[in-house]
Amino acid sequence: MIAVKVSEKSIRRLSHYARCLRLAKIRGESIITSQELATNCGISSAAVRRDLSIYGEFGKQGSGYKVDDLLVNIENILGTTDPPSVIIVGAGSIGCALMISGLAGTAGYTYDSIFDNDPAKIGRYCGEKQIRPIDEISEVIRDKKEVIAVIAVSSGSGQDALEMLVDAGCNAILSFALEPLKAPDNVEVRYVEVSTELDVLTHSMRRKERVN
Amino acid sequence: MIAVKVSEKSIRRLSHYARCLRLAKIRGESIITSQELATNCGISSAAVRRDLSIYGEFGKQGSGYKVDDLLVNIENILGTTDPPSVIIVGAGSIGCALMISGLAGTAGYTYDSIFDNDPAKIGRYCGEKQIRPIDEISEVIRDKKEVIAVIAVSSGSGQDALEMLVDAGCNAILSFALEPLKAPDNVEVRYVEVSTELDVLTHSMRRKERVN
Repeated sequence: MIAVKVSEKSIRRLSHYARCLRLAKIRGESIITSQELATNCGISSAAVRRDLSIYGEFGKQGSGYKVDDLLVNIENILGTTDPPSVIIVGAGSIGCALMISGLAGTAGYTYDSIFDNDPAKIGRYCGEKQIRPIDEISEVIRDKKEVIAVIAVSSGSGQDALEMLVDAGCNAILSFALEPLKAPDNVEVRYVEVSTELDVLTHSMRRKERVN
Repeated sequence: MIAVKVSEKSIRRLSHYARCLRLAKIRGESIITSQELATNCGISSAAVRRDLSIYGEFGKQGSGYKVDDLLVNIENILGTTDPPSVIIVGAGSIGCALMISGLAGTAGYTYDSIFDNDPAKIGRYCGEKQIRPIDEISEVIRDKKEVIAVIAVSSGSGQDALEMLVDAGCNAILSFALEPLKAPDNVEVRYVEVSTELDVLTHSMRRKERVN
């Protein structure tokens, strides 16, 4: 497994290339040009060519790149050839919606299980998975070894969920909780922040109105 | 309405400060120190002090900042004192979950309405809102004037949804669709990309394993 240090911006672009290459594979395409990759990914073709030249011997400029080989190489860099399990903590509307919508089109991630601490929810189904009691999380994390946990608990409960996950040995967390979470240095926490995205869009909209 | 040009990173931090100040207000606090703001927002206190010194006369260092005044000033910079309406396109599991979980704790955004093109869904309820037919979107956008649209349609339908929104006059879009979307230059598109966040977490996890 090659997993070199790459900037976050580059990782995001590589993740987008991988997604486009998977779609090309589904369409039965075996060769892709850097221009096609640029158009499909919404990234400038100059940036695509630069990335492809930096991240290894992926093919020949001009004659195009082999879709399979390029995808394998990019997934090696990302470390996603054999992706970790993903669990969901919190079987509210967002947690269940994530489980139901699934992770098709990704590097092969699947939602392994979903947990809640509400006795009224435990045992019910979200899509095809039964909601499990929260005290079974440590067992799942121990069995799977590598787990990414998605925190989708109600506002104000994010920190408790994080601490329980960290105690159970989880060191990769994606939080939909509104509040910032405190975690030890060895734990990576990322956020999906709809309200911040709305603020960024509003700021941009209002600034344009002021300029025009 | 003051809405100066600020870098995206700064906007995100200002959005986080605003969120923490709203919570402080709910707790009945009238004064907040830069250290408290730093701790509550998960941002270094040096960065908080720098931001507060750059973005105006928000209070006095040492004796703390007035929560109300600081919030008003930050919302003026963000342009969120009177936030635009938010609509949801796509009443699948994610679209409905967003509608149900709502936008409490934000600058005052609310999900105004939710749309779908599936006759079987139209008229049903997501939370307290009835799902409306997609051809009513242009009317809503015309009435509201300022609208942020959240695209939560199924994979492969994102571009169609975007084009319909742009034709209807919407120029601010937050997409949960997996595919990159093409939009005119005057339209701001942002993405919530769970699969890319998972890739970033996996890359980080695998790199640590390799280093250790």
